[in-house]
Amino acid sequence: MKPKSKNIFWEHGNVSREDREQVNAHRGATIWFTGLSGSGKSTLARLMESALFARRCQTYVLDGDNVRHGLNRDLGFSPEDRTENIRRIGEVARLFTENGSIVLTAFISPYRADRDMVRGLMRATDFIEVHVDCALEVCEQRDPKGLYRKARAGEILEFTGISAPYEKPLSAEITLHTDGNTPEECIDQLIDYLEANGYLTQLPETAEV
Amino acid sequence: MKPKSKNIFWEHGNVSREDREQVNAHRGATIWFTGLSGSGKSTLARLMESALFARRCQTYVLDGDNVRHGLNRDLGFSPEDRTENIRRIGEVARLFTENGSIVLTAFISPYRADRDMVRGLMRATDFIEVHVDCALEVCEQRDPKGLYRKARAGEILEFTGISAPYEKPLSAEITLHTDGNTPEECIDQLIDYLEANGYLTQLPETAEV
Repeated sequence: MKPKSKNIFWEHGNVSREDREQVNAHRGATIWFTGLSGSGKSTLARLMESALFARRCQTYVLDGDNVRHGLNRDLGFSPEDRTENIRRIGEVARLFTENGSIVLTAFISPYRADRDMVRGLMRATDFIEVHVDCALEVCEQRDPKGLYRKARAGEILEFTGISAPYEKPLSAEITLHTDGNTPEECIDQLIDYLEANGYLTQLPETAEV
Repeated sequence: MKPKSKNIFWEHGNVSREDREQVNAHRGATIWFTGLSGSGKSTLARLMESALFARRCQTYVLDGDNVRHGLNRDLGFSPEDRTENIRRIGEVARLFTENGSIVLTAFISPYRADRDMVRGLMRATDFIEVHVDCALEVCEQRDPKGLYRKARAGEILEFTGISAPYEKPLSAEITLHTDGNTPEECIDQLIDYLEANGYLTQLPETAEV
């Protein structure tokens, strides 16, 4: 007689999103930071990741660094390609979210239609739009990558805030003012939002697997 | 004086892949199942997910269900689109792997060049090619989706194994024979492989975060 499998399987068979969320002790979600260049999206995404990791949450940061040279390497900067860029980012965010992770994205994403498209890919409560609000003058003064200078000199065309529009969110889940608060204060506000809305529910460790 | 942040941040700042792997107590990797239609790829991927979840590993199953209608909805079945389909799947697998998850993919992926392209996206030890080896006659007898019948009737053109080639892996990390072993036995072999090669290192819970 052949031996039975040495391995224990998850008693309910297929692993569901809810199973993962119970073990992770938090819900999956996409926290979509949107705002001008220099407003602090990447800084907040990384700091938030750090705060969530300290709480043992499963997180994932999606930004230009990990998609432009990989998944979206075939895309340029035409209007169609920009939309396709955001669409694929949204689809990847959805996959991670449905797998129970808290996704943190950091893209200017200046158009409402694009952001709403991503929102439409997910369950209503999965998408948390965070308006990283910072006065243009402050962003331009920071100019961490020297992009505003180039845009003013006409070396970059269609630069958001200078020569291309930024469409502010009309009903973001939360707005963070990075020109009046420290990054840490913004993170406190965002964590408060997640806690108040049940995303960080600390389930008791009852999941006997 | 403004209060300091209420939140604790991860003491090392940016969260690295190694940080996640230590907390997860296993390594990130992509387990790439390849084989004929009906060979058992999806069954093994789901069963493996269940076995790994029971060990509290972070896993992710990528199969036709979650990419064809989402990320790859713009792709058809031309040779170029098939290659782009596998490329994007590989890129998504890489993102999850670098985030510390064990990814389980279930695609026929009949061409060596495509599988090697995905392998080339990752660190050498990140990609575990699993040849799900099953005699064509057995696959055709199972025919869970009735596809072989349609292919024999000429209703499906270029069907792998019937009217299109399947290029067997030349140096898969592991070969599972699903025509001579139960799925559970195959999972045992695969878990043994992961354990023997240090993927499931059970680190002590020392990571004080």
